[in-house]
Amino acid sequence: MTKTFVILLAISGFLTGLAAADWNILNQKKKYGLDITLKNYCESWRMNVELNNIQGFDVVPQECVGYIGKYMTGTQYKVDSQGTIDECTVYLSTTCNLKKDGKDAWIFDIDDTLLSTVPYYKKHQYGGEKLNLTSLEEWMSYGKAPALDHSLRLFKDLRGRGVHIILVSSRREKLRSATIDNLVNAGYYGWTNLILRNPNDECKSVQKYKAEVRNQLTGSGYRIWGILGDQWSSIQGYPSARRVFKLPNSLYYTG
Amino acid sequence: MTKTFVILLAISGFLTGLAAADWNILNQKKKYGLDITLKNYCESWRMNVELNNIQGFDVVPQECVGYIGKYMTGTQYKVDSQGTIDECTVYLSTTCNLKKDGKDAWIFDIDDTLLSTVPYYKKHQYGGEKLNLTSLEEWMSYGKAPALDHSLRLFKDLRGRGVHIILVSSRREKLRSATIDNLVNAGYYGWTNLILRNPNDECKSVQKYKAEVRNQLTGSGYRIWGILGDQWSSIQGYPSARRVFKLPNSLYYTG
Repeated sequence: MTKTFVILLAISGFLTGLAAADWNILNQKKKYGLDITLKNYCESWRMNVELNNIQGFDVVPQECVGYIGKYMTGTQYKVDSQGTIDECTVYLSTTCNLKKDGKDAWIFDIDDTLLSTVPYYKKHQYGGEKLNLTSLEEWMSYGKAPALDHSLRLFKDLRGRGVHIILVSSRREKLRSATIDNLVNAGYYGWTNLILRNPNDECKSVQKYKAEVRNQLTGSGYRIWGILGDQWSSIQGYPSARRVFKLPNSLYYTG
Repeated sequence: MTKTFVILLAISGFLTGLAAADWNILNQKKKYGLDITLKNYCESWRMNVELNNIQGFDVVPQECVGYIGKYMTGTQYKVDSQGTIDECTVYLSTTCNLKKDGKDAWIFDIDDTLLSTVPYYKKHQYGGEKLNLTSLEEWMSYGKAPALDHSLRLFKDLRGRGVHIILVSSRREKLRSATIDNLVNAGYYGWTNLILRNPNDECKSVQKYKAEVRNQLTGSGYRIWGILGDQWSSIQGYPSARRVFKLPNSLYYTG
């Protein structure tokens, strides 16, 4: 290992706040002749999650917990998310030709699309700890998840344009009351429908459940102009929408 | 503008090698209360291209040419791409249950999947200059595009597993001979089929052309286990494959 590489490791370790023992993964990458830092590796992990190449992960790799935490609480996450919203706005203002006949609709996810679960994951190793659904639902029941400001701006924009806003979440029905309180307190109100998972939907994949909801919505005559979600399972599958927009989120995977 | 912000701008300008005149875009981002560097902005642009939120762009934004050039010629691009290939390998070794009956197939793109066009774009502002097809095809006709090492490893792995390798490219038929020479010289040989665009395909979108090719292949009995491409138009549309893998590429957009 060269001196330069040791220095790079030291810098990257400082940046991500990890102990030297976690760097074993780097040795695996040396075989391809790439002298890489832990930051290079974790950035690649995050990029491949966003590209939907890495699917079905249970936890964020231990050695990347520091990096993911830094990203999800830092400026870049906000800028990346604002970039996504900017594209929604460009689409709404240009190619999206709203009919204004009471059938224009837009679908939003809730968690990490409208409301942030980062405060919860901050206490659970930024996804480095296997999900405990009971604990997450208890936190959700307090109704204290903060709004994601960029999404709130889009929500208000759509409401102003007279588009029906439909919230489709994999949260369970029993969280309905807490979810409504949380949304309203965070500034979200004026939606048309809030669709949560009932027990029958729990044996399906989230992607199938959400596609079936869209099937019902289009069957009712809604024209779904767009979906904003943070998971591929929210925006893939048929029927889809005319455009789909994916926010970044590397804390967890919902399939 | 605070002194810290000016310093951040100076650092980011140094990193991306741009003149101060190109920083106007930053002022647009200040309105959301985000004090961001040019690097933050360009990283967000690249992430939103990879997420397929930014579609149909003709050129890389002028202010991000330095950043994109640095990324596409640097370590992170290689590490991100290797991360994609690693996921293909995990898939092939685990959930992908090859039948070995002569019908297992895998599809590859060519440009920026097997062969790199980076040497061409290096002379054309890393996508900051509008595409001149004549000039690009002239460069392709020399057959000097280098192999992408990570993809070459996957190509050989698949060949070793007895999987039919099918190359589906939006390059035109007239480039067939130069393309074959280039591929073989770069280490790619032993594919089953090389499908290029004939004049009839040129009036279709690339996505439609590639989906039609897959339709013919599945009609011939091929089981398409995977697609590796660098553009969403190579991996979206129906019929698809059992899994699709997207390599990073922010130099250009093919729709």
